[in-house]
Amino acid sequence: MTNNVNAASFRLPIRPELANETPYGAPQIDVPVQLNVNENPYGPTPQIVADMAAEVSAAATSLNRYPDREFRDLRAELAAFLASESQVADLKVENMWAANGSNEVMLHLFQAFGGPGRTALTFTPSYSMYPEYARDTLTEFATSPRRDDFSIDTDAARAKIIEVQPSLVLLTSPNNPTGTGLDLQTVEEILAAARQVNEGCIVVVDEAYAEFRRAQTPSALKLLATSPNLVVTRTMSKAFALAGARLGYLAASEEIVNALRIVRLPYHLSAVTQAVARTALRHSETLLGSVANLREERDKTVAWLREQGHQVADSDANFAYFGKFANRHAVWQGLLDHGVLVRETGPDGWLRVSIGTPDEMRAFKRALVEVTQA
Amino acid sequence: MTNNVNAASFRLPIRPELANETPYGAPQIDVPVQLNVNENPYGPTPQIVADMAAEVSAAATSLNRYPDREFRDLRAELAAFLASESQVADLKVENMWAANGSNEVMLHLFQAFGGPGRTALTFTPSYSMYPEYARDTLTEFATSPRRDDFSIDTDAARAKIIEVQPSLVLLTSPNNPTGTGLDLQTVEEILAAARQVNEGCIVVVDEAYAEFRRAQTPSALKLLATSPNLVVTRTMSKAFALAGARLGYLAASEEIVNALRIVRLPYHLSAVTQAVARTALRHSETLLGSVANLREERDKTVAWLREQGHQVADSDANFAYFGKFANRHAVWQGLLDHGVLVRETGPDGWLRVSIGTPDEMRAFKRALVEVTQA
Repeated sequence: MTNNVNAASFRLPIRPELANETPYGAPQIDVPVQLNVNENPYGPTPQIVADMAAEVSAAATSLNRYPDREFRDLRAELAAFLASESQVADLKVENMWAANGSNEVMLHLFQAFGGPGRTALTFTPSYSMYPEYARDTLTEFATSPRRDDFSIDTDAARAKIIEVQPSLVLLTSPNNPTGTGLDLQTVEEILAAARQVNEGCIVVVDEAYAEFRRAQTPSALKLLATSPNLVVTRTMSKAFALAGARLGYLAASEEIVNALRIVRLPYHLSAVTQAVARTALRHSETLLGSVANLREERDKTVAWLREQGHQVADSDANFAYFGKFANRHAVWQGLLDHGVLVRETGPDGWLRVSIGTPDEMRAFKRALVEVTQA
Repeated sequence: MTNNVNAASFRLPIRPELANETPYGAPQIDVPVQLNVNENPYGPTPQIVADMAAEVSAAATSLNRYPDREFRDLRAELAAFLASESQVADLKVENMWAANGSNEVMLHLFQAFGGPGRTALTFTPSYSMYPEYARDTLTEFATSPRRDDFSIDTDAARAKIIEVQPSLVLLTSPNNPTGTGLDLQTVEEILAAARQVNEGCIVVVDEAYAEFRRAQTPSALKLLATSPNLVVTRTMSKAFALAGARLGYLAASEEIVNALRIVRLPYHLSAVTQAVARTALRHSETLLGSVANLREERDKTVAWLREQGHQVADSDANFAYFGKFANRHAVWQGLLDHGVLVRETGPDGWLRVSIGTPDEMRAFKRALVEVTQA
């Protein structure tokens, strides 16, 4: 529709900080081997698909009614899943929160605990959406560099927390894009430093990829009972292979969850989303079965990349971060020319490849050899 | 989970303006006749439910992949629906936007065009969520009263726009909770006044209930081709009987839509939501068939209430706003005691009743007679 009248004289009141921005998102390019957004290559089984359709069918008969605003059944089932996955007891409905993707969970956290006059701190490289949440909620965004091996120097972290007095500290374990997990001592020291912030400070441990962690890497959920300022976020997009259904969630104290209930838009989780997520949780054993395969493929990919002479960060996730290339864009483009899409993200020189099926990883390896030998 | 350590010494950094708030939402009380949240009493037919299940089943096989971030197919189908419903030509994919309920559509508008240092203006009584969107985005919230018959005095509106220099003006047609529709001249005069705001000003006409409007009440979509600062929002919750599926949308200039694409969270609309909404749009004739019945029942309800001696606002919506009661809470409670839940909202003395099935309206009338004669 073309506006014919007054368009020239009309000024769009877009916020100045948004005026030159572009919408966030990885390039969506249609190639045979998509290893760029850390999707799980294994879709739901026919049985799970059939069960989802049946549950949606049951929910659809009353879609004229608003959904359950507090989604307590879903929250109870998420709590039960975490209790079993991470061996933590005592998680209750009141400790759980969920939204349309962990994106929206993070937005709720920023709305409740960030905002103008407040600062969110993270340790870079880290997840590229964090500055977007800060921008959208007008929260100051501060960063402190990780070590060269992408681990966090807790002394430097403590000093930075004292310096910027953040209301939110964002940790990622495993980290995106590097795959690096955090040990509990690091998390505990940062939690303790955050509790020294005069105005209060929440520490969010983003565990989007936690189900892929190696045996030696613990979940920060273990610290929840002793840490009133801890939030652990998870997602069903990765291990549950449910990126298309948009379900992120978190565990925290009841006080923190109650703050999120204030900023959530009423009825933010549709009846259909609740039905699909609950069906997936019922099938968590099957869905998480693929996680073991992906872990094994991940470890093989990391080992192979090292054999090829590349630097590779230790990975607790379903991707590998490797480099360093003098011209990473040329390598990215070369892989794309071979039909393999990976992600150019984080520090210069590094590339991130998602772990796909064995066939996809063979295609990736073949392409990388050809590109780097050319 | 009880936090044992440090809880006493920990201060929750919740934003001060949220500290004493409670989560938004109408009381959810389980009674036989629910006429409190303007739901459509007619759920989808078995055929529509079956088609939704089939479409979700098709989408579910690739739920491990992220959804279409730009949802262009859904946007094209929403444009086609509006073109047919309101006889407007030239609506393109680029003029359309959608999100999880019109709540989230409004949040995007406030994020892009509101925020600190900016003001949103509405004419009260109006929708009770507007101050929440303002609070959540730290936008100043200004109001100007409607006339006693709930119409808008355009001279007063113009003066208020000049006074507060808003970046957002929120009109509702039909209005919630009063049911009052706006004529095009009123909307045009407010659009013209808004274009005089130095820093730019968007006028949002919230048409959540537009499909229920009477023949003499036009849609503001008619003004879109000539009004670069106009946004018209709609929802599938009411006429489409899809409150549980959460799909709100809007039509506006491409420039306005592009601003919303910046603040949206990536992948905010799930593949399942897209599939369910598209199925409903395919069945729009059937789903909107109930609208004619509800309109007729609405007109009968308004006439009956007037016969009973009540004041009733003219209604273009699927509810009636009636009063005035010296003690409206007593009437609300009396109706509830008879198993009929209505809504206590807006100016003192008035109650809002959603239009239900003929049986539900009989129960409402019987209860109201008993309560008011007692």
